[in-house]
Amino acid sequence: MNIIIIGTGNIGAAAQKAILAAPDMNLVGVYHHNEIDKISCAASSVDVALLCLPTREAPMYADKLLRMGINTVDSFDIHTQIADVRSNLMEIAKSHHGVSIISAGWDPGSDSMIRALLSVLAPQGQTYTNFGPGRSMGHTVAAKAIEGVKDALSITLPLGHGKHGRHVYIELQDGYLFEDVKKRLLADDYFAHDETEVELVDNVNTYQTTAHGVLLERDGMAAQLDGQHLQFEMRIDNPSLTAQFMVGCARAAYRLKQEQRYGCYTTIELAPVWMLPGDDNYNIQQYV
Amino acid sequence: MNIIIIGTGNIGAAAQKAILAAPDMNLVGVYHHNEIDKISCAASSVDVALLCLPTREAPMYADKLLRMGINTVDSFDIHTQIADVRSNLMEIAKSHHGVSIISAGWDPGSDSMIRALLSVLAPQGQTYTNFGPGRSMGHTVAAKAIEGVKDALSITLPLGHGKHGRHVYIELQDGYLFEDVKKRLLADDYFAHDETEVELVDNVNTYQTTAHGVLLERDGMAAQLDGQHLQFEMRIDNPSLTAQFMVGCARAAYRLKQEQRYGCYTTIELAPVWMLPGDDNYNIQQYV
Repeated sequence: MNIIIIGTGNIGAAAQKAILAAPDMNLVGVYHHNEIDKISCAASSVDVALLCLPTREAPMYADKLLRMGINTVDSFDIHTQIADVRSNLMEIAKSHHGVSIISAGWDPGSDSMIRALLSVLAPQGQTYTNFGPGRSMGHTVAAKAIEGVKDALSITLPLGHGKHGRHVYIELQDGYLFEDVKKRLLADDYFAHDETEVELVDNVNTYQTTAHGVLLERDGMAAQLDGQHLQFEMRIDNPSLTAQFMVGCARAAYRLKQEQRYGCYTTIELAPVWMLPGDDNYNIQQYV
Repeated sequence: MNIIIIGTGNIGAAAQKAILAAPDMNLVGVYHHNEIDKISCAASSVDVALLCLPTREAPMYADKLLRMGINTVDSFDIHTQIADVRSNLMEIAKSHHGVSIISAGWDPGSDSMIRALLSVLAPQGQTYTNFGPGRSMGHTVAAKAIEGVKDALSITLPLGHGKHGRHVYIELQDGYLFEDVKKRLLADDYFAHDETEVELVDNVNTYQTTAHGVLLERDGMAAQLDGQHLQFEMRIDNPSLTAQFMVGCARAAYRLKQEQRYGCYTTIELAPVWMLPGDDNYNIQQYV
């Protein structure tokens, strides 16, 4: 299986390590996002491209690569747009006899598979997704955009039952007062609805982390009997888990392509065994 | 989707409740295991049969029903024989244009899917499956089948890191000696490999419970980075969860049949969305 990586950020770097450790994959190229012509020239020898790009750019690249005959895996994470992205890429994948797997990080991604499975097991009930503690990119970017903020870092704190708090570390620009900046930040739409603590620090980098976590909890009924409790929990490195799961999904993309089941898939449409190295019989003996 | 249940024990009873609560299923028959002629007469109007039978009998019934043109779901739970059972039923399912999903309880079953997924997320590491405390239906049935046992109950005890003990309560049949019966029980393949305590009691029912639990833990590496911790935990009612998951797998069997993807499948070969009611687009919006 010949794999290329597009993107050279945290996830791209972790994806290189994941592919090098995979027994069934060759890393045949690492490309910057603007090297699309180079990729086009190499297309005939590539099975799957991992799109390790800013989330908003991923669908456009998936479109381009499918047209080149390259199957794709991305970690597109804007939940409300996933169904539309899938629908658009479905047509292109089918008409170019390719496979695109989208939203294949940990949330959306592996957590999506778990959420679906929790509802299979207990069809009536509530599922809560509790993120953190860990860095939120969206909130960090929003905090950095506040007037008077020199640098910022926003950590997501799980408050239980799907509610989240924010701990925001900020450095001040010269000439600004902390209380004024804090007030502006708390009034921002990103922070106004959550319990938010703002802390003035000398150096935001002291608090940087790629560690993250999630707790998925479901309480509900199975066969009409209440009181079933199910939960899934991870304490992980964010870029490493994202990249490793994308690598698993690359196997699924390759297999679906081989079986001529062209199209665009989300992770809940994939069987776990498609993501593992080794033949099915071996994996059935290992995991079932 | 027209479903029948074969078997009138705990799982069969729970399966009735699960099907009655399912928005997309009709329960069109409940049969005792010896009513195979009746089932044969009704076969043309049946989509999927849930085999709620003692585990050793399930493969034979799956074979019979596939030959009648009925797709099957069972919860066959002898881990070491699953690959062989799959291989035997594969031929029959394919030649009769049917689908058989085997080992579709919670372990093997939903836990199998989780174990596979944990290894996708952290390919190097250790997974521990810790069961209990709770009654093992398979071990209880096995204990009851021992000559000289009037009634029995086998409780699984988690000893940590995937090690388990068994606490077996038995009542004796008249004319049998406890030591003889205990020796036979300890020699049975279900008990020979675990630390097993056998206790003679006046009334097994005093100790009955259908509550159970499991903790799946994996510590390992993702993208060559160590220290990733992942776990799945359930506190559930055993027959209810087993039956509910079988109902989910009946949807998968029905779908695979519609798509003419005939054969015998274990749960790690199934995508979660195939097990949910509602169309894929709706489920993608709900769960991804």
